Amino acid sequence: MKFQVNYADRFNNMEPSAIREILKLANGSDIISFAGGLPAPEVFPKGKISWVSAKVLEEYGQSALQYSNTEGLTALRKQIIGRMETKMGVSGLTLDNIAMVSGSQQGLDFVGKIFCNKGDVVFVEKPTYLAAINTFHSYEARIVEIEMDEDGIIIEDLKKKLAIYPEAKFLYTIPDFQNPTGISMPLYRKIQLMDAVRGTSLMIIEDSPYTELRYEGSRTPTLLSLDDEGRVIYLGTFSKILAPGFRLGWMIADKEIISRVIIAKQAADLQPNTLTQYIASEFLDVTDIEEHIKEIIKVYGHRRDVMLKCLEKYMPKEVSWTHPNGGLFLWITFPTNVDSQELLKECIKHKVAFVPGEPFYANEIEKNHCRVNFSFVDDKRLEEGVRNMALAFKEYLAKTS
Amino acid sequence: MKFQVNYADRFNNMEPSAIREILKLANGSDIISFAGGLPAPEVFPKGKISWVSAKVLEEYGQSALQYSNTEGLTALRKQIIGRMETKMGVSGLTLDNIAMVSGSQQGLDFVGKIFCNKGDVVFVEKPTYLAAINTFHSYEARIVEIEMDEDGIIIEDLKKKLAIYPEAKFLYTIPDFQNPTGISMPLYRKIQLMDAVRGTSLMIIEDSPYTELRYEGSRTPTLLSLDDEGRVIYLGTFSKILAPGFRLGWMIADKEIISRVIIAKQAADLQPNTLTQYIASEFLDVTDIEEHIKEIIKVYGHRRDVMLKCLEKYMPKEVSWTHPNGGLFLWITFPTNVDSQELLKECIKHKVAFVPGEPFYANEIEKNHCRVNFSFVDDKRLEEGVRNMALAFKEYLAKTS
Repeated sequence: MKFQVNYADRFNNMEPSAIREILKLANGSDIISFAGGLPAPEVFPKGKISWVSAKVLEEYGQSALQYSNTEGLTALRKQIIGRMETKMGVSGLTLDNIAMVSGSQQGLDFVGKIFCNKGDVVFVEKPTYLAAINTFHSYEARIVEIEMDEDGIIIEDLKKKLAIYPEAKFLYTIPDFQNPTGISMPLYRKIQLMDAVRGTSLMIIEDSPYTELRYEGSRTPTLLSLDDEGRVIYLGTFSKILAPGFRLGWMIADKEIISRVIIAKQAADLQPNTLTQYIASEFLDVTDIEEHIKEIIKVYGHRRDVMLKCLEKYMPKEVSWTHPNGGLFLWITFPTNVDSQELLKECIKHKVAFVPGEPFYANEIEKNHCRVNFSFVDDKRLEEGVRNMALAFKEYLAKTS
Repeated sequence: MKFQVNYADRFNNMEPSAIREILKLANGSDIISFAGGLPAPEVFPKGKISWVSAKVLEEYGQSALQYSNTEGLTALRKQIIGRMETKMGVSGLTLDNIAMVSGSQQGLDFVGKIFCNKGDVVFVEKPTYLAAINTFHSYEARIVEIEMDEDGIIIEDLKKKLAIYPEAKFLYTIPDFQNPTGISMPLYRKIQLMDAVRGTSLMIIEDSPYTELRYEGSRTPTLLSLDDEGRVIYLGTFSKILAPGFRLGWMIADKEIISRVIIAKQAADLQPNTLTQYIASEFLDVTDIEEHIKEIIKVYGHRRDVMLKCLEKYMPKEVSWTHPNGGLFLWITFPTNVDSQELLKECIKHKVAFVPGEPFYANEIEKNHCRVNFSFVDDKRLEEGVRNMALAFKEYLAKTS
């Protein structure tokens, strides 16, 4: 007899996404994939990590393999605070303001767990990072989308939604080189945002995985550095500047919030990975990560240029796209009658893949967009991929018109 | 102006535990601590892990540092299935039945997340692993304790509670060398347990971190191997047989449950640590982990013997304790008028620490017990620690009588 399982309500109706199933088709090595959010493995500092790891195991092996504290290694947290001060313009942080998490994704999970009762309203950008939507849904939050323009969140729309939902828990935003659009908030917009929420009870979750990967223009201050009330929770990560396989991110917030994060972490998985924390800390100590980041910027910046040039060259004029100054992604907009899921099927026949726009919307789905990654694929295949996408698009149009 | 934070109900009243605060006093290096649940770092195969890591980074560096799949590395999951078959008597497992998690603690978190609506009843042993209590509380489950005797869960009490709470979601049990008591269920009791739940909707969560660390007697089958209905969810871990710093555990269950685990993992932290999965997999491939486990057993088994001998030698006759055949812990019972938190304060003055019994109870707290770890401290300090505990106990008695 097969046992009948009774799931929690939050899990009863969760099904693997249709898009995941389509994208499994794109896993073949003959497919040029713009679908992932993957760093280019050829820029991983493999050799340096190798000797740094050997050094760590030799010098601190017994500690590096053992349990360690829930909030993360003290040395590593100090190093991150140091970089937050020099690179992100943040000041006055102490060790009580930072906790290590297993990638910034875990930070999002804790945000949901710590703040969301069933039915609580949370604001996200429209569109936004799809796994954030899933995570907030897993805590049965009610997601409300805020409109964006080419400078990010539209302040008037935020104010309008705040008037309707004054009890909203937080706004989740990726201010720099947003996933999926590549859009960034300029300083004026960041200041407008902080002004708009002053006096309200809205927290701001600033997800900042791409901030250091800027290829053009100059850095704008983080929302965290503009916050004098303790309403910003900042999420950082080593995934895009060192190695995603380390699963190391960090949360920075008011110390009372961090104390709740530590309780959540203890219940969730006790502590971050000890060994990869030691390796990351030693890497920061004995190598020059700023030099390494410069190399990443050189490679990805070039690929962005190639991608933009190829889109210009191959795409018909009714297609438009964003021009990100950094990060990993750009966002293509097709005419409104295009269904990008159907287009993806056509593209896979032409050996190229992307992520359709649909899953990046929490409520009001727009079907005529797609997210394209430019960090993973090298120049030559970038051009081939864009050319094939354009070809597939023309064939899709011919079929549907 | 300081921002006013509104936490979710589940987090509103969570405070750092009083015992954690006391145990912070026990962190000094001059304290002999029986409080942790730590493996002895001197048995970590530091040298082997060092060259295995170098090999991994050399041969698979680009993959080992990259994102990888949510359910865990295929090679590693195959190796674990192989060991589950040869060491744990389980058969018929496929890759759909196993997902890697960040330590078995994360498995507990997913059990809570997947199964528990607010107010759902879950059964635990009395006493049980304290972090399991915290995790189930974090999903607002209602915890009901099942009485134990020297062979584990008392079947009559389980049946009684099942009659009162027929809709209870699961029983959480650590059948082998339980944390905190060191008690194991013999085969007859495991069979009785599986019989008692047949026909009910109660799932069984079998937490098995210590099963391979047996110092006496012969292995009994896992509950998973006695299950023909798909009601057992099994949690395993590398923490006690390889290195807790790797943060690698696994869940084995019916494939539909595992598909929900994968959805939960995706939302929680995307994936397990890529690098430490590669290292663990290579370690299993190129070294003999069975030999390594034999060495651990030799060291810990000896320490258990020393601990038991010293308790016999130093403790007054009104104190009793369990005689575990394996694992890391034993459980001391003082006369019922003893408050082990107060006794701990006395012990810390005598430079020795343990965990008071209180946090291991979900509801009906008993104050006259403590959990003692025998794996972490070497022989000489073991004897000194027990002698000092006995001394502190006598002084505590003199003070309170």
